[in-house]
Amino acid sequence: MTTTTSVMRAEIGEQPAALRDTLDALLPLAPEIAALGRETRQVLFIARGSSDNAAVYGGYLLQAHGGRLATLASPSIATTYRARVDLSGVLAVAISQSGRTEEIVDTMAWAADCGARTVGITNGAGSPLAEAADLALVTRAGNEFAVPATKTYTTQLAALAVLTLGLGAGLDPGELAGLPGAIDDALDRHTDAVDAIVERLVGVKGAVVSGRGLAFSTALEAALKLKEACYLHAMGLSYADLLHGPIAVVDSATPAILVAANSGPTLPGTVALAERVVSAGAPAYGIGGGSALAGACDLAVPAPDVPEWLAPISLIVPAQLITERLARRLGYNPDSPRGLGKVTQTG
Amino acid sequence: MTTTTSVMRAEIGEQPAALRDTLDALLPLAPEIAALGRETRQVLFIARGSSDNAAVYGGYLLQAHGGRLATLASPSIATTYRARVDLSGVLAVAISQSGRTEEIVDTMAWAADCGARTVGITNGAGSPLAEAADLALVTRAGNEFAVPATKTYTTQLAALAVLTLGLGAGLDPGELAGLPGAIDDALDRHTDAVDAIVERLVGVKGAVVSGRGLAFSTALEAALKLKEACYLHAMGLSYADLLHGPIAVVDSATPAILVAANSGPTLPGTVALAERVVSAGAPAYGIGGGSALAGACDLAVPAPDVPEWLAPISLIVPAQLITERLARRLGYNPDSPRGLGKVTQTG
Repeated sequence: MTTTTSVMRAEIGEQPAALRDTLDALLPLAPEIAALGRETRQVLFIARGSSDNAAVYGGYLLQAHGGRLATLASPSIATTYRARVDLSGVLAVAISQSGRTEEIVDTMAWAADCGARTVGITNGAGSPLAEAADLALVTRAGNEFAVPATKTYTTQLAALAVLTLGLGAGLDPGELAGLPGAIDDALDRHTDAVDAIVERLVGVKGAVVSGRGLAFSTALEAALKLKEACYLHAMGLSYADLLHGPIAVVDSATPAILVAANSGPTLPGTVALAERVVSAGAPAYGIGGGSALAGACDLAVPAPDVPEWLAPISLIVPAQLITERLARRLGYNPDSPRGLGKVTQTG
Repeated sequence: MTTTTSVMRAEIGEQPAALRDTLDALLPLAPEIAALGRETRQVLFIARGSSDNAAVYGGYLLQAHGGRLATLASPSIATTYRARVDLSGVLAVAISQSGRTEEIVDTMAWAADCGARTVGITNGAGSPLAEAADLALVTRAGNEFAVPATKTYTTQLAALAVLTLGLGAGLDPGELAGLPGAIDDALDRHTDAVDAIVERLVGVKGAVVSGRGLAFSTALEAALKLKEACYLHAMGLSYADLLHGPIAVVDSATPAILVAANSGPTLPGTVALAERVVSAGAPAYGIGGGSALAGACDLAVPAPDVPEWLAPISLIVPAQLITERLARRLGYNPDSPRGLGKVTQTG
């Protein structure tokens, strides 16, 4: 077993502090968010990569709890087709860790040209995205040096929670206060469970990662981490899409990793999916989902008890830990996967 | 080499006739579509599986050429969270081959309750979806017996092309007339190219399928076919998302399959992506993209010359042929993959 550590592991551990700083900075912007909310009726997210997975969280959160339609834009409509679309009444929310990915900056400018109001969520204070947006929600993740996004991702989710509250969702902002501490408490507590899953993932052909509703964002992000840092053929799939076909790809050499909050309306379906995977002869590994999901899976990592609407901010942490350990176990450097840079230009 | 044939192969060949019948049935509904268009400002697609890939085509088509925002719904907002979202001014377009998938029928009913007008696209005349929609666009694919959708998928795309025309896009409806014949002409012409790619796919660890803009729908659908029928770890990824991370997963044992129309604004980027894949040491196989893409790839299957806005209807056919041949080559029955039924209930 490898014993050295990585920058990625250090940055995983910095998330509680980064979340505290981000919430402290952004919660006071509620009035500005509410003002944009009064001018708009729906949200359109503009993002790529990990930021796109954050947008999936924002979309479910705004629709499940905020009463607003919230869907994802197709940036190539702006940058490749250069089409004109009526975006009056739309709040375009662009998400970019660096704030410098040209495709995202250009698509947000296009949205404004098409009549949208704009919010930029970025860790880049003074970046082109922060400067151009009607309102910038600047996360306080500090510098992130490892290529796989960790604290810049979870602070994006925190910004989206603040955005949803500001737009008038019937959620308790007080529940945010306990979140960083809950993540901190859980960080080093389940190392044995993480290591046990890592050992089972060594040598697999691929993996399917699934979650439903708000936790779908976590499944997508966990799959992306495993692809980026471990070169694993990991597919992030929604619960329904897994049933609609690709369940055929799980088998004894292709486990499913299933993610769920400890409570909430998506938990029973996720437990049933774990049972179906196991009965199909494939291993199932759980992240979160309390004792119900752990009982249905071969192995599981517990997640802290936070309300379902905030669970994706804590559920990704065990997946980050699994990714970092598995990369090192496979002899890769999780901090700098081949072929990836920190700011991606897609032009 | 296997020499028997399959129901799937027969149904692939029935697509030109199915497309003709569908266009004949649906083009006269333009006035009803236009009436719904006057009452709404944007489109929200409700779909799963292959139908969801069709919705991706519809979304790009409506936005690139119809001036309307067109995005994808998250059915679990309706069926699991039972949330109320303001959908006034929205045209909800539900797509289901059978018209009987409860989640899709229920989500369309939810959209109507939330203020949306509704269109149902289905091959099931008299199905619950067709009966409940404000306007039913019933495709004329006939019975489809093989589990992997082929002619029900391409006729869904044809219905979406008719919908886009009816909503006032500045496209030439006359270009639809040549489409079935162009597909028919190409069906048996490139068997050697299909077989050559199939031989290279035997024994790969996985594959990435990518396309940009309108052709992204084809990449997703091709990946789903390969997953369903060949148990291949195939990931459908947009051009930009491939650059934003998972390009790390292509290698000598993990080819990229790249899809593009023979012309149009996404072709240069797709050719550049093929060059990048090859320079990373991974094989690249092309579908369509004319001589430019073929020249950048190790192997390629030509696609007929149809306008870019209709190209996804023809580009999927070589991918269907590759899937059917590869499944048989691997000893699977493409007509009935394990674990899949023809109507999926996701509850």
